[in-house]
This record gives sequence, structure tokens and C-alpha cells, in this order.
Amino acid sequence: MDKLISLCKRRGFIYQGSEIYGGLNGTWDYGPLGVELKRNIQQAWWKSMVGSHANIVGLDAAILMHPTVWKASGHVDNFSDPMVDCKACKQRFRADKIDPSAIANKKCPNCEGELTDPRQFNLMFKTHMGPVADADDSAVYLRPETAQGIFVNFKNVVDTTRQSVPFGIAQVGKAFRNEITTKNFIFRTAEFEQMEMQYFVKPGTDLAELEAWKTKRLNYYHQNLGILPENLRFHQHGKDELAHYAVDAYDIEYHYPFGWEELEGLHDRSDFDLRQHQEFSGKKLHYQDPITNEKYLPYVIETSAGLTRSVLITLMDAYEEQTLTMNEDGTIGDHRVVMHFHPNIAPIMAGIFPLMKKEGLDTIAQELTQELRDVFNVEYDASGAIGRRYRRMDEIGTPYCITVDHQTKEDNTVTLRFRDSMEQVRISKNDLVHHILKFNREYQRKP
Amino acid sequence: MDKLISLCKRRGFIYQGSEIYGGLNGTWDYGPLGVELKRNIQQAWWKSMVGSHANIVGLDAAILMHPTVWKASGHVDNFSDPMVDCKACKQRFRADKIDPSAIANKKCPNCEGELTDPRQFNLMFKTHMGPVADADDSAVYLRPETAQGIFVNFKNVVDTTRQSVPFGIAQVGKAFRNEITTKNFIFRTAEFEQMEMQYFVKPGTDLAELEAWKTKRLNYYHQNLGILPENLRFHQHGKDELAHYAVDAYDIEYHYPFGWEELEGLHDRSDFDLRQHQEFSGKKLHYQDPITNEKYLPYVIETSAGLTRSVLITLMDAYEEQTLTMNEDGTIGDHRVVMHFHPNIAPIMAGIFPLMKKEGLDTIAQELTQELRDVFNVEYDASGAIGRRYRRMDEIGTPYCITVDHQTKEDNTVTLRFRDSMEQVRISKNDLVHHILKFNREYQRKP
Repeated sequence: MDKLISLCKRRGFIYQGSEIYGGLNGTWDYGPLGVELKRNIQQAWWKSMVGSHANIVGLDAAILMHPTVWKASGHVDNFSDPMVDCKACKQRFRADKIDPSAIANKKCPNCEGELTDPRQFNLMFKTHMGPVADADDSAVYLRPETAQGIFVNFKNVVDTTRQSVPFGIAQVGKAFRNEITTKNFIFRTAEFEQMEMQYFVKPGTDLAELEAWKTKRLNYYHQNLGILPENLRFHQHGKDELAHYAVDAYDIEYHYPFGWEELEGLHDRSDFDLRQHQEFSGKKLHYQDPITNEKYLPYVIETSAGLTRSVLITLMDAYEEQTLTMNEDGTIGDHRVVMHFHPNIAPIMAGIFPLMKKEGLDTIAQELTQELRDVFNVEYDASGAIGRRYRRMDEIGTPYCITVDHQTKEDNTVTLRFRDSMEQVRISKNDLVHHILKFNREYQRKP
Repeated sequence: MDKLISLCKRRGFIYQGSEIYGGLNGTWDYGPLGVELKRNIQQAWWKSMVGSHANIVGLDAAILMHPTVWKASGHVDNFSDPMVDCKACKQRFRADKIDPSAIANKKCPNCEGELTDPRQFNLMFKTHMGPVADADDSAVYLRPETAQGIFVNFKNVVDTTRQSVPFGIAQVGKAFRNEITTKNFIFRTAEFEQMEMQYFVKPGTDLAELEAWKTKRLNYYHQNLGILPENLRFHQHGKDELAHYAVDAYDIEYHYPFGWEELEGLHDRSDFDLRQHQEFSGKKLHYQDPITNEKYLPYVIETSAGLTRSVLITLMDAYEEQTLTMNEDGTIGDHRVVMHFHPNIAPIMAGIFPLMKKEGLDTIAQELTQELRDVFNVEYDASGAIGRRYRRMDEIGTPYCITVDHQTKEDNTVTLRFRDSMEQVRISKNDLVHHILKFNREYQRKP
């Protein structure tokens, strides 16, 4: 984990947020490679949802929503942790995280001063809209989840598209939680991104739809993101874990270095959300079947994936330290760090190298770079030995390295080297796009 | 404008934010078509910056930043409007927007009660991080602009990439301003998106670089987004308009229905921002030329485009009501509303219609839809007369309509109809992708 964080910083994947000011807890900035990785994952998800399903449409709701939305959703009343304050030193603690005897004796773990009774601390960030600061009626929240933006637009989508149940609404966007303990790099952060698709179905068909989406979503991680199957599993929520609105719920868990933890939630939310918003808004939110004229509130199958966590797992899953040769004395000889990103999401598709910076090889390589830039993210590199250039590309997960050499001038071919196998083939310069697209389609990560 | 807003609502481009709760002022939600338009514009911009320039890299900094960032940038002290309160009725007014005599007499325009002296009201949304609400040292702000996220990461990018001056950092993201008067649909909103590229140059080369970027950016609107040239112009900031840090500044203005107003800002920001962050953070932010070893703080050429405003101008610019035929009595006969989106950004690339829902034409059209969906956003439509299906696609700016008819079964050709000219050609079904990509490259909007 520490090695990965260090690589992320050193190669420009992820920096600490506001780093030159000592950082802001729970925030991270995505550097030149990180932002491409994140964009590619986002695009792969969007394509797997909106692009591949005639009955899933996109949406992009605002982060700032009417405060009653969070009354209806239950977040104002229930989205909180219990806190105690010390009357003497003014420090605040999570009541369920300090020694229970401190709570019973009301004795501060810091200064032994008197503690207050536990109070609920809401995890939503609160701000004020309009000029009257601190007035209760101007309070708005940064959304703690993107899902509610979909539920409040359910009727809009039904009325302005030709979708009929079952159909889905997909959305990618930021959400914010005032977490007391952010931790594990970008696993739990105050500001994060979600990719949610809420699928509206006829009541009674919900459990079958949940099963179908479980299969689809697990396949997506294997096939579209190239995640190793052994690092993914389902965890069904037990009766004590189920949210009050949930009929059934599964997490897709990933095997992080710190244990099995949630990556995506798949929940049968019943008609809880539409019913709540119907009640709190006073607007009718039922759906009328266009053929049978039957009216009902659809059930919702939620697929809620973390974009931030997807970045984390693709980084973790891809990371490998490889020993390539052993020395005669038994010590490690040639070795490399390689990121096995699926070509769908690799920040850079190909490195393009002239074998040397003379005899016109650099000009040919630069022209090729310019040409391929129209189709892929590519990077020209002419500095240092070829072996070192390969290692630099391996470390950031570039699937292909293309070298322009003397033979290129004779027969217009280049060498194309595969990141994972380190094998090389000669290919006509003019067929590169075609071949790379083909290799991408056929890509299988070797375990 | 009203017709456009109505079309945006009716066809699922843009809905009022939190509409079922009566709306939240200054927020808007993007529906199924709006989100595709916005994504396409964002992608076109990213490609024109990061994708087309070896010396421009991407970044995605957090919305929540260390509060000292906004001290250094000047926003805490200066980003404000003057406000007066009424001591009797408690209403608040912008001091520069009410009758000056009311300020002089301190008489409330609402109840004639006594007004306070004008006070500065900061436009940044403030919230609190960590459990101690309302403590001054936990205050953080929603960023009012994305630029500062780039400036505070300047050193990170220099240290972790191989870029050397001149180079640029590009970023797309949300920003928030607590505007007292949001207005003109999505022109001025509390929550909006920016696409900014900050270009770091050697002092002395800045004015020439500014000129070069002026040309590039104007061309982008014409060529990449298809905006009509007559609706764009430069406005140079006069001495009284120039921000204190700016050496020179231009706006690209668009001819909105409510007048010429800003669309993008191109500013020579000098070394103001890096100098301020160097001073407030105590970190050295100078750049060292790798060849001459000369050390300096780079100047910044800012290109700051509104993504939200880009959505607005592409909608406005594309909108046309066309009379196609006149009746003999001189009244309007056939007519249509057509959105002339550039194919780069059109939410749907092609509508695919079976001439009728029988004789297997619907099956062929559905298979074609499935096939093209891998490459483009396409929509299958089999309901109503062909003419009505064309009109529905015209109204949402779909560049091509493809009809499967009886001849398709004989020779595998379909008709492809162009949105703007309404002309039709017959094309082999297997060559559709190739031809559409070619038509897109050659697309020119007829004035």
C-alpha cells in the first residue's frame, strides 16, 4: 500500500489535496495520469450502462438540492454518528470509538475534564444559500449521495422520454460526507465520486432483476476493468445490516490490502424512495403502464459503484513487482514494477520511441506520435536507453511500446512490445491503430 | 429564449433543480439529452486541449481546498457584494442595486424601517469540516473557481511529469458562487462547471502566447462546436475592468438573446497566483529552466471557459424554426424546429427507423441499432409516420436518420437522411460507420 501511494505521488496519479498548504484531510487531487485513469473508468462505466442499454438513460443532477430532499430521504434525521464534547478542553470524540468507561464516567480521555452526554453529529456538510447566513431556512446540504437526484427526477424522465418500466437512470457525480475518520488513501474520503444506476421495475419482478444485475456488475469488473476474479466477491447483507428500506442487498467486495471491503452496493430499495418523495413533495410519482393502464410505484434496484474506489482497486489490482532474472549468486537481477491496467482504462495507450535521436528516426517517431494522438493517448520519449524507457512505461501501465528503428526506414515497420509478456512483434506502421484495437479486444490478463 | 427553455424541458435536456420540491434557485438538472450534450462538449474541449497538445496535461483537484488557498487568491477579502440589512423587517438588499437615496436615508425599500450601513457579503459558500461546527478554524469553502486547484498543483506537475515551460494544465470541474441574483436560465447559476487551461510561460513571452491562444480558442468554437462566427466576438478589458493581477485580458463574448455577454475569459494573469501561493504557503514555487538553469516564476495565460455556458450557447446557436412550404393562401404550411448541433456534440448521432413494423424490417432495424450502438449514441424509433419521426429527431438535433425499407432486403442498402439539408442518399448498410465518420469530418453548417 505504501509503495502504491508513493508510486501514485511520484508518477502523477494522485497528490494529497492542497498539499502545499499541509493538505486538507480527506481530499485528494488527481494528477495527469490519475485524471486519465479516472476518466477512462468513468467512460467504461457510462458505456456499459447508457451506451449498451436502450432502456438506460443518463442524468446529471445538481449537487445542491432542496433541503426537504434530505428530510424525505431520512438523511437529516438519521445520517449521523454519536459524539461527545469535553466541557474543559473542548475536544470532540466519537462516542462509539472511545473507551466505554469514559462515556459512563463522563471523563475526557484527553484532559479528564467532564464530557457531555452523547449527541448525534450529522455527516452532511451544511452551507447557506442566499445572503442570510446561518438562518435555518437558508440551510442547504452538499449531497451525501447521488441517488436522490435520480429519484426526484423519476417523473421528469418518464414524462420527457419514451422509456417504460423496466428502465434505468444512470448518473456520475460528486458526493460529500463529513467523515470524522477518513482513511486508507482514497478508500474513505470527505469528497468522492459515485456512479449510480437506479433501475425502476415492476414490484414482484425486483428480486429477479437484482439477480440479473448482480451477474452483470460482477462481469463488468472482470471484463471491462480487467479486475482479477479472486479479488472480488459478493457479501449479502444480514438481517441486522439491511437498511430499513431494503428488501435484499449485496455488496461487491474487493480484497483490499486492509481486508475485504465494499466496492459497489446492489440493493433492492423497494418503493421506499419514490414513496417518501411523493409524501414530502405532495406530487404524484406513480407510473402508469401504457398497455395495462395499471398504476403503481416502481421498485428500485440500485447499483451504486464508487468511482473513487474504482480508481483505487484498479491501481491496487494492477500493481506487480516482477523479478525478471536472478543473478548467479542468488540475488535478484533484472526486475520491474508493472501496472497491468486493462487497455480500456490505461492512462496512456502507447509509448512511442525512436531507437536513437538521429538519422531521422526521431522525426518519424514524432510524426507517428502526432498521427496516433488523434485516436489514443500516446507519449513520445527519446531519452535514455530503450530498456529504461520500457520500464518507465511499465510502471504507469502503458500496454504498448512502439519503437522506430533503422528497419522502419526500409520497410515502414515498427516493433510493438506488449507490456505484460514483454514480447515484441513487427507491424506495419500504417496498421498500428487496427492492430492495437484488435489486441485491446482480445486482452486477457494472465494471472 | 422561452421557446428554447420549453423545448429543453419537454425533450429532456434541462430540468429545474429539485423541481418536485418547487425548485432550488440557481440550480438545474441535466436530463438524458442534456447530459449527453454536456459530456460531448466536455470531451471536445478535453480533446482540443490535452488530446491535441503534447505539452498540456490534465488535472482534477478537489472542490474542497485548504481555506488559506482563498486567502492567498484574494477571495476571502475581495470576492464580495455590498449588502444592507433592514433592522425592522430583517430583509437584506444589495446596496448597489437599490435606490441610492434609500442608502443615504437608511430607509428600507420594503417597510421604511432603518437600514444598516452597507457590509460586504462574500460570494463563497462556506461550510465546516470535522465535527466542530461553526468554529472558525474548521471553515472551508466550496471553490468559487477551478483555477486555484491548478496553481497549487503547479509544483506537483513540474516534479512528476517531464513538462517544461511553456506547458499547460487543463481541468474540468464544478464551482459554486452564492449569487444573489441568478438569472437567464443556465447563464448565471449558483452551481456551474468550468473548463480551464492555465498555460505557464516564460515572462516576456506572455503577450505573444495570449495572442496565440485567442486565435486557437475562437477557432475551437467555430470548428469543434460549430458555433456561427457572427455570434462570437472579442472584448478587450479596459483599464477600469482589468483585475489587479491582469496584464491584459479578453473575453470571448457570445451574442445571447439578452445581449453580448462573456462565454470565455483569456487572461494574462502575470505571476500573481504563483507569487501569492508562494508567499502564503511558504513553499518555493519557482521554475528552473533545465537548459539555462535560470529560475523564475512563470507567467500564466488563462483560458477559462464555462461548460455550463457552452451548453447554453450550443443550444441557442443550434435552434432554428424553419418554414418548409407555404400554403396557397399565404399561410405557413410544413414547418419544423431543428437544432443544428455539430455532429461532434449532438446527443444522438442517428435515429434508426424501420419503414414499417412488419415484413422483418423492424428486426433488421433493431439489429442495426444494436450494431451501431457500439460506436455512436443511436435511437430506434418505429412509431408513427416517417415524417413525424424525422421531426422528432430534427428537434433534438440528430444529424442523421437511417431508414430500413423493402429495398434493404434486396440490396442491403438503407436511406440516410441529413438533418440540415433533409437530402437523402442510399448507402450500403455495412458502410454506415465509415460514411458517418466521413460526413462528420466534412460537416459545415450552412448559414
